[in-house]
Amino acid sequence: MQKIYIAGIGQTPVRENWEKSLKELAGEAALLALQDADLGYPDGIFVGNMMSGTANHQLQLGALMADWLGMHHREGLGIESACGSGSAAFRAAVMAVASGELSTALVVGVEKMTDSPLSEITASLATAADADLEVDLGVSFVALNALVMQRYMHEYNWKTTDFAAFSINAHANAVSNPNARFQKAITMMDYERAGMVCEPINLLDASPVSDGAAAILITSKKPSSGKTVSVAASASATDTISLQNRPNPLRLTAAEKSARAAYQQAGISPQDIDLFEYHDAFSIMAALSLEAAGFCAPGQAPKLANEGEIAINGRIPVATMGGLKARGHPVGATGIYQLVELTLQLRGEAGKNQVSGARWGLAQNIGGSGSNITTHILHQE
Amino acid sequence: MQKIYIAGIGQTPVRENWEKSLKELAGEAALLALQDADLGYPDGIFVGNMMSGTANHQLQLGALMADWLGMHHREGLGIESACGSGSAAFRAAVMAVASGELSTALVVGVEKMTDSPLSEITASLATAADADLEVDLGVSFVALNALVMQRYMHEYNWKTTDFAAFSINAHANAVSNPNARFQKAITMMDYERAGMVCEPINLLDASPVSDGAAAILITSKKPSSGKTVSVAASASATDTISLQNRPNPLRLTAAEKSARAAYQQAGISPQDIDLFEYHDAFSIMAALSLEAAGFCAPGQAPKLANEGEIAINGRIPVATMGGLKARGHPVGATGIYQLVELTLQLRGEAGKNQVSGARWGLAQNIGGSGSNITTHILHQE
Repeated sequence: MQKIYIAGIGQTPVRENWEKSLKELAGEAALLALQDADLGYPDGIFVGNMMSGTANHQLQLGALMADWLGMHHREGLGIESACGSGSAAFRAAVMAVASGELSTALVVGVEKMTDSPLSEITASLATAADADLEVDLGVSFVALNALVMQRYMHEYNWKTTDFAAFSINAHANAVSNPNARFQKAITMMDYERAGMVCEPINLLDASPVSDGAAAILITSKKPSSGKTVSVAASASATDTISLQNRPNPLRLTAAEKSARAAYQQAGISPQDIDLFEYHDAFSIMAALSLEAAGFCAPGQAPKLANEGEIAINGRIPVATMGGLKARGHPVGATGIYQLVELTLQLRGEAGKNQVSGARWGLAQNIGGSGSNITTHILHQE
Repeated sequence: MQKIYIAGIGQTPVRENWEKSLKELAGEAALLALQDADLGYPDGIFVGNMMSGTANHQLQLGALMADWLGMHHREGLGIESACGSGSAAFRAAVMAVASGELSTALVVGVEKMTDSPLSEITASLATAADADLEVDLGVSFVALNALVMQRYMHEYNWKTTDFAAFSINAHANAVSNPNARFQKAITMMDYERAGMVCEPINLLDASPVSDGAAAILITSKKPSSGKTVSVAASASATDTISLQNRPNPLRLTAAEKSARAAYQQAGISPQDIDLFEYHDAFSIMAALSLEAAGFCAPGQAPKLANEGEIAINGRIPVATMGGLKARGHPVGATGIYQLVELTLQLRGEAGKNQVSGARWGLAQNIGGSGSNITTHILHQE
């Protein structure tokens, strides 16, 4: 496939953004990316979003944003893959530019979740699971993750506090990210005292419902100035949509498959990866992601985390800007936040959170309880 | 761009399909397309849909359908562009295959609208318009189209009965399409007696809320048997999402732009087109589409229709299998139905509805009140 470059990035702070509408939020991130790239208007816009139809009574986000940005008559498209919508939109845009149909494309991930009652958001999030086999039987999205965590603890003999290290790391990294929702460190004592959401998942195992938007401008032409960041790999895979149909619910097979394909495309192996923006929507997903991407054996991720290997100066830094847990998880935007953060790291612009000498960044974005997973590898050339 | 071929097609009858779920409906069309192509499982699936999140409480349709079809772990994606979702998914798939990332892709358009109360469907359809500038002020989607029709009648001095010819033609063609919702001819008297929906749009100006799914398998390799149908052009353009922001609400500028780009890609002009599957969601959209695609001057489409030029043996046959009006308009599926019908025509398999010697087919699919429009040209080589 034709090589694609990242020419510009933008992001809004992740907050409860009641003063801004969906399009203002997406527009703010988009304008920052356009400004950063300084290549004028792109040929098309790809918008990743999950729940604007239910939460904001607005679909047709491709045209909406092309219009709002003044990209008169250029093409626009909406992409949905539940919490994996951001990276799915990025991959669709990468393929569109690689096909030669467009020479530049703007990818925006956006989600505005805090205007709606939480019960409605919980129902909207559940549309990522199987309506017939899961949701109609009364299980919510957090409950599905709780079942997986329960099983993981049973199989591998971990206790809940063994998962605290994922959240402590995420919060520690978010302290110096001005765009993070929670710029506040947490301790083991905080974790132990956190209220239970759905046993064994407590409040500090779960990423927050948030508003946010992030954007990336991609191009088929190598940018002439600044550090060159390219898309070294893009791969996507699916799994059964319902958890109960998987031979082993503790394996994120779609993550394994797409990671393997991505390593092959980039011609590298997990050891070459300098940092990993994983999908820590819940602590259990952080653990399973590290295992699926090849950084440790199944069942061993809590050990990796507790030994400090996931810190910025560790063997495999993760959630370097706070991750879903502490930067926040505006679901359809998350995949783009991950890629924006990788780009900052690869450009050497991550400030206090900089991973020294980072050249290869991995991002993995999960839709549903692992039913749709897209893996990207970015490279600083 | 690399040339793309249509290897297989499938469609379900357009009905009130209460006995089938969303995935069964999409699956039925998908399996027919896979069977027709006989190339085994594709590398990925692209699902065009508008309102499954609100009407069926189910998102993540890419993974859902990959799972249902047994396409273990292959990639899946959902594409949304309101009523233009079908053709938008087709275009995304065409670009994905043209990029070389996939060698075959299945595109499914599906919508299941009749399980929900009509008030909910009306609200869902309105998410295609501008939530802030149109919907929140109380205008529904049919009301927007009524405003356009009113203005058109005023500007060009037509009366409502001048629009009957579009619907009479559509119903006449649907009589011999076993997949059409209304296999029943209508007369001018029926049209005159039809109840008013939103003045001046009456019941026989409006396409019906329906359930349906259609599917197409595309490939980068020229099929070795049967008549070869290729994608000669694919183009998409946007316009302002709200009607009030357009310099002239009677011009479908996004249709003009994408049609012009498509003719240029294919190296042909409107005179070369043998048939046109247009987006006759309302009679007024039929008229504006004929004008935007270059078949007559602005304001002249009712004349073309009333002179019989849009009939199967006319100068530019339209809605040859019944169109949105009589085949039915399951919104996210419509764009794929159009392309399936063109393929039947170009293969010479359209039975009593066959356009004699058809070699070039045009399809145009509209999202919103003209805010996102994709044009495709198919060619029998």
